[in-house]
Amino acid sequence: MPLRGVLPILPTPFTDDGAVDEGSLRRIVDFELEVGVQGVSILGFMGEAHRLSNTERKQVVATVVDQAGGALPTWVGVLAFGAAGAIEQAREAQDLGAAGVFVAPLAVQNDQVIFDYYAAVADALEIPVAIHDFPESFRTLLSAELIARMADGIDGVRYIKLEDPPVLAKLSRIQALAPDSIGIFGGLGGVYFLEELQRGSRGIMTGFAWPEVLVAVYDAFRAGDSTRAAEIFDHYVPLIRYEFQPKIGLAYRKFVYHRRGIIESTFIRPPGLQLDDYTRSELTAIIERVGFDLDARGVQRV
Amino acid sequence: MPLRGVLPILPTPFTDDGAVDEGSLRRIVDFELEVGVQGVSILGFMGEAHRLSNTERKQVVATVVDQAGGALPTWVGVLAFGAAGAIEQAREAQDLGAAGVFVAPLAVQNDQVIFDYYAAVADALEIPVAIHDFPESFRTLLSAELIARMADGIDGVRYIKLEDPPVLAKLSRIQALAPDSIGIFGGLGGVYFLEELQRGSRGIMTGFAWPEVLVAVYDAFRAGDSTRAAEIFDHYVPLIRYEFQPKIGLAYRKFVYHRRGIIESTFIRPPGLQLDDYTRSELTAIIERVGFDLDARGVQRV
Amino acid sequence: MPLRGVLPILPTPFTDDGAVDEGSLRRIVDFELEVGVQGVSILGFMGEAHRLSNTERKQVVATVVDQAGGALPTWVGVLAFGAAGAIEQAREAQDLGAAGVFVAPLAVQNDQVIFDYYAAVADALEIPVAIHDFPESFRTLLSAELIARMADGIDGVRYIKLEDPPVLAKLSRIQALAPDSIGIFGGLGGVYFLEELQRGSRGIMTGFAWPEVLVAVYDAFRAGDSTRAAEIFDHYVPLIRYEFQPKIGLAYRKFVYHRRGIIESTFIRPPGLQLDDYTRSELTAIIERVGFDLDARGVQRV
Amino acid sequence: MPLRGVLPILPTPFTDDGAVDEGSLRRIVDFELEVGVQGVSILGFMGEAHRLSNTERKQVVATVVDQAGGALPTWVGVLAFGAAGAIEQAREAQDLGAAGVFVAPLAVQNDQVIFDYYAAVADALEIPVAIHDFPESFRTLLSAELIARMADGIDGVRYIKLEDPPVLAKLSRIQALAPDSIGIFGGLGGVYFLEELQRGSRGIMTGFAWPEVLVAVYDAFRAGDSTRAAEIFDHYVPLIRYEFQPKIGLAYRKFVYHRRGIIESTFIRPPGLQLDDYTRSELTAIIERVGFDLDARGVQRV
Repeated sequence: MPLRGVLPILPTPFTDDGAVDEGSLRRIVDFELEVGVQGVSILGFMGEAHRLSNTERKQVVATVVDQAGGALPTWVGVLAFGAAGAIEQAREAQDLGAAGVFVAPLAVQNDQVIFDYYAAVADALEIPVAIHDFPESFRTLLSAELIARMADGIDGVRYIKLEDPPVLAKLSRIQALAPDSIGIFGGLGGVYFLEELQRGSRGIMTGFAWPEVLVAVYDAFRAGDSTRAAEIFDHYVPLIRYEFQPKIGLAYRKFVYHRRGIIESTFIRPPGLQLDDYTRSELTAIIERVGFDLDARGVQRV
Repeated sequence: MPLRGVLPILPTPFTDDGAVDEGSLRRIVDFELEVGVQGVSILGFMGEAHRLSNTERKQVVATVVDQAGGALPTWVGVLAFGAAGAIEQAREAQDLGAAGVFVAPLAVQNDQVIFDYYAAVADALEIPVAIHDFPESFRTLLSAELIARMADGIDGVRYIKLEDPPVLAKLSRIQALAPDSIGIFGGLGGVYFLEELQRGSRGIMTGFAWPEVLVAVYDAFRAGDSTRAAEIFDHYVPLIRYEFQPKIGLAYRKFVYHRRGIIESTFIRPPGLQLDDYTRSELTAIIERVGFDLDARGVQRV
Repeated sequence: MPLRGVLPILPTPFTDDGAVDEGSLRRIVDFELEVGVQGVSILGFMGEAHRLSNTERKQVVATVVDQAGGALPTWVGVLAFGAAGAIEQAREAQDLGAAGVFVAPLAVQNDQVIFDYYAAVADALEIPVAIHDFPESFRTLLSAELIARMADGIDGVRYIKLEDPPVLAKLSRIQALAPDSIGIFGGLGGVYFLEELQRGSRGIMTGFAWPEVLVAVYDAFRAGDSTRAAEIFDHYVPLIRYEFQPKIGLAYRKFVYHRRGIIESTFIRPPGLQLDDYTRSELTAIIERVGFDLDARGVQRV
Repeated sequence: MPLRGVLPILPTPFTDDGAVDEGSLRRIVDFELEVGVQGVSILGFMGEAHRLSNTERKQVVATVVDQAGGALPTWVGVLAFGAAGAIEQAREAQDLGAAGVFVAPLAVQNDQVIFDYYAAVADALEIPVAIHDFPESFRTLLSAELIARMADGIDGVRYIKLEDPPVLAKLSRIQALAPDSIGIFGGLGGVYFLEELQRGSRGIMTGFAWPEVLVAVYDAFRAGDSTRAAEIFDHYVPLIRYEFQPKIGLAYRKFVYHRRGIIESTFIRPPGLQLDDYTRSELTAIIERVGFDLDARGVQRV
C-alpha cells in the first residue's frame, strides 16, 4: 500500500549531558501515535543524524521501531559520502525494522553519478527509497528530469521528500514527467503544505512541532473540504513560517517539545544554535497568538 | 535625518518585447507615493538589475528620481565584480539624484577584502551606503562582527539590508555590537517583518507587491499598537509567505502589479521564471482569501 | 581563417598609483609582436577586468587594438551578470576592433539558461565567441555535452578556452562530440599545453610570462617535431607549474614583465595578492634554473 | 619524536569485483618499506575512504598496521559529518594502532565551529591530530590565523596537511604565527614539494605513485644539498604535474601501481574516473620521458 499522510520528522532528544535520551524518544513516538500521524521519519537533519555516531544511529532506529510497535511505519534518513556507506546505513535500518529510507544525494553535480548512487542503494535494499531533495543542506541540484528518470528507472525509488524551493512548480513538473512512478512528500517546515496537497502531494515529512495542525489540514483536504483545510492552514501560518527558519528551527522545536512535556531536555549537540531568552519569549508569543498552550499536556485541538 | 520606514523594492517593468518601460515605472512610483511609503529601492535583484545594461540602469535611476520629484528618497542597488565598477555605478546613481546605495559584497570569503571593498565604495561617495547582506544570491557570508566593524569603521556605511536567515538573532547581535552606528532594514519578502520591528529594525526594503500591508504594520507598530501590528501581519502572512519564494517571486509580483493596473506587461528577462496558468490561479486564490481585489485600482484598505 | 596558435592573456598594467598605464600596455603589445604570437587576449581574470570600470575596459581595448595595428587579432574577455550587460560589453569591444570575445558563463547551474545566454550574446555580434570554461573562477560547470550542443547550435560560438580540470579527457570528449564545430584552446597557465596539442587543441590562451616558451613548443609541434616540443616543454615545466598558482599568479607575472623592462609598475588592484621579498627570490631562483635572464631585454632564446 | 619525512597517501586496492584487496594492500606497505618512507597515510581521498563502509575502513587500518609491523607509523584519514562520527572513526583507528589521524573540517564556514570540532576530536584521543586543509574537496576555508589558533590552543592538534593553493604564502604565514606548535606537511601531489621544504615544511603526505622521487628530494634537501634536491625535483616535475590532476589522479596512480606489479587490479569504485587507452599511453610516454620503467619490479633509481 503506497505511503500517504503526515510523517513528522522527529528530533533526537538528548539528556542534559548530551547522551541519546531513549525515554524521551519513546515519549515522542507515543505522542505522534496519539496525534494520529501516518508514520514517523527519523535521522534527518532535524534529527541531528549528522551529529550521531553509527552506534547512536542504530540505537535511535531500534528505539523508535520498538516503541512504534508496528503501529507506525518508521522512515530513516541516510546521509553518506559514498554508496558503500549509504548501503551499510540503509541495511542496518532495514534490519532494525525501518519501513523505508530517505536518502541524501552525493554532493556531486553530475546526473549520472547521482542516478548510479540511488540505483546502488535501492538495489541493495528490500525496503523503498525516498530521494531527499534538499539542496540547501546537501548542495546538489536534482532536476525534475533526473528525478523522473530515477523514479522510472530504479525499482526501489518510490518517493521524494521535496525541499528545493520554489517547490511548487517543481512538484508539478515531476508529476507531469513521472505521473505513476513517484509519490511526492513536502517538507520545508510545512510552509507550502496547502499548495503541495492541492498540486497532488501525498503528504509531508517535516519537523513542525505541532503535528496536530498538519494532520488537521491533511484530513480536511483528504475529506474534500479544501476551504476548511485552507482555513486551518492560514490560521497557523504565522507559527509555521516562524518555526521554519534555517539553523535555528531545531532549537524552536526542542523548546516546544520540552515545554509540552514530551522531552526532558532541550540539549542540542554543537554547533547547533541555541535559543536565548528573548527568542523563547518571541516564539511563545506567536504560539499564544495562534491559540496553543505550551504548558498543556497531550494533543491540542486545532 | 536617519532613514526609517518602508522602502519597497521596485521591479523594473518592461514592454512585451523586453525594453525598459518608463511609463510603467513612473506609474509604480506614483502608486508608492499614494501608498505612503518612506522611500523606494530600485535595481535590486527584484529590479532585475543584473539583467540590465549600464545604459538601462542609468535610465531606470533617472526615471524614478524624476518621477519621485523629491518626495521620496530613491535607494539604488549596486552589484559589481570589483571596486572600480561599483564606484562607477554608485557615482552614476549619486549624480542622478539617488539618496543612497545598497551594495552587494564581492563574492570573496575574506573579511578584510570585504571591509576594504565597502570602504573604497563608501569613501568615493557623498551619499550613504547600505550593506546588502543576502548570501543566497551573493554567496558571501558576512558575520555580525564584520558588519559591526564596518559600521563603526567606515563613515559612509550607515545601513544594512539584512537577508541572511535566520535573520532575527543576527539582527539582535548586530545591534548589540554596533548599537549606534547602523540602521537595520529587513527584507526576505517581509516574512519576519513583525519580529524585526520588535527587535529594533528601522523598517524594510522588500518587494512584496502589496506595500499597503507593510505600511500598515509599520504604522501600527510605530504608533505603539503592537497588538494591531501583529493582527495585520498575521492576517496577511499566508500571502506574504507565498509570494516569498526564491526565483519565482518576481513573476508573482509582476503579475500582481499588472493585474492592479500599474504596469503594462509581466515580461521578465530570461532566465527569469514565468508563471503558468495554474500558478496564476493559485496565487489569485490566496490573494482573495486575505481579502484583496486584483482588479481594483489604487491603494487597498488593509 | 580559423584561429590557431598562442594568444597570450595580457595583464593590465597600472601606474604606481593604480591608473591604467597605456604606455606599458603598448609595450606589452610590442613585446608580443616581437615574440611572434598569433594574437593577444585581454580583459581576462589575469587582466583584472573585474577590477576595471567600464570606462577603463574600453580604454584597454582601444589601446591594444591600436597598438596591434592589425598585426595581431585582439580577443576580449566578457564577464557580466546577465545577457544585456554582456552584449553591451561585447559590442563595445567589437566596435573598438576586437577580433572576438571570450565570454564567461552566468553563475547558474542550468544548461538551458547557459545555452540561451551564449546564444543571446553570439547572436548580437558579428565577431566570434569563445566559451570561457573556468569553473574555479565562474563556479559554473559546463558539461562536454552542453559545450558541443552550443558549438553545433549557435553560429557564433566557435571556440572554447578550456580550463576545467582535468582538462585532457574533457578536451577529447568535446572533440569527439563536435569534431568540426569548435576550436579548443588551452589555458591553466600552460601546465598541460603539450598534452593539449597532442590531443588536438588549436593553441593556448594563457598568461605565462615567458610566451617565448609557448611559441617554441607550438612551433615545434606544428612542424611535426613532437620530440623537440616535449623537450622544450619538459625543460620549462618547473617554471610553468610554479607560475600557475591560483590568486598569486598575476603578481608573479607582473613581477616578471616589470623586471624584463616591459611594464613600469607591478601594481595590482586590491584585493589582488602581492609578492613579498622571499617569494620574489623564490621565483627568481626558478627562472634562473631554467636559464632565463630577468634583467635582459627583448625576446629570450628558448 | 616529532613526525618528519615522506608519508605517502596509499590507495585502497580492490579486486576486479570491487572488494577490498588485502593482499595488494600488504604489498603496497611492503613497497613503501622498501622505498624507505617515514610513514604511510591511509583513508584519504586517494584511499577512497569516502567510498568504503565503516567495516571496510576498519579492515584497511588493521591490515596496514599489521603489515607495517611497527616499522612505519600509520596515519589515518577521518571524514565525518559531525564530531560524534569523527571521534568514533578516530578512536577505532587509535584502537587498531594508528599513529595519528588527519581530520577533514566540517563543511561549515564558521571559525568557532571549526575550532570546537577539532578540539572535540583531539580531546577524545591519545594520538595526535593533523588538520587536513583541502578546500577543493572539503569546501571549507581555514585561515592561517584559525590554524595557528588551533595549533596553539588545542593540545592534540600538532600537524597540518596543507593543500589550500596558493600554499606557499600560507605555509610561511602559519609558521610565522605558530612557529613552535605545528608541523606542516605538503600535499597537492608534490607539485610544490621543493619550495615547501625550502620554506620549512616537515615533509609531505601525497599520493604520487613514485615515492622514490619524493624520498630522494627529501633526503638531498635534509642532507643540505639544495642543488641536488632541485635537480631531482625539476627532472621529475613533468610527471609530478601530470599525475596531479583532480579527479583522474587516482586512476593514474592505480595504473602505475598495477603496472609496477604492486596491486592486482586498477578497479576504482564509482563514480571514480577510469583511464581510457589514449590516456594510458599518454601517461606511459611521460613516465618513459623521465626515465622510469613501468614494467620493472621494485624500487627504481632516481
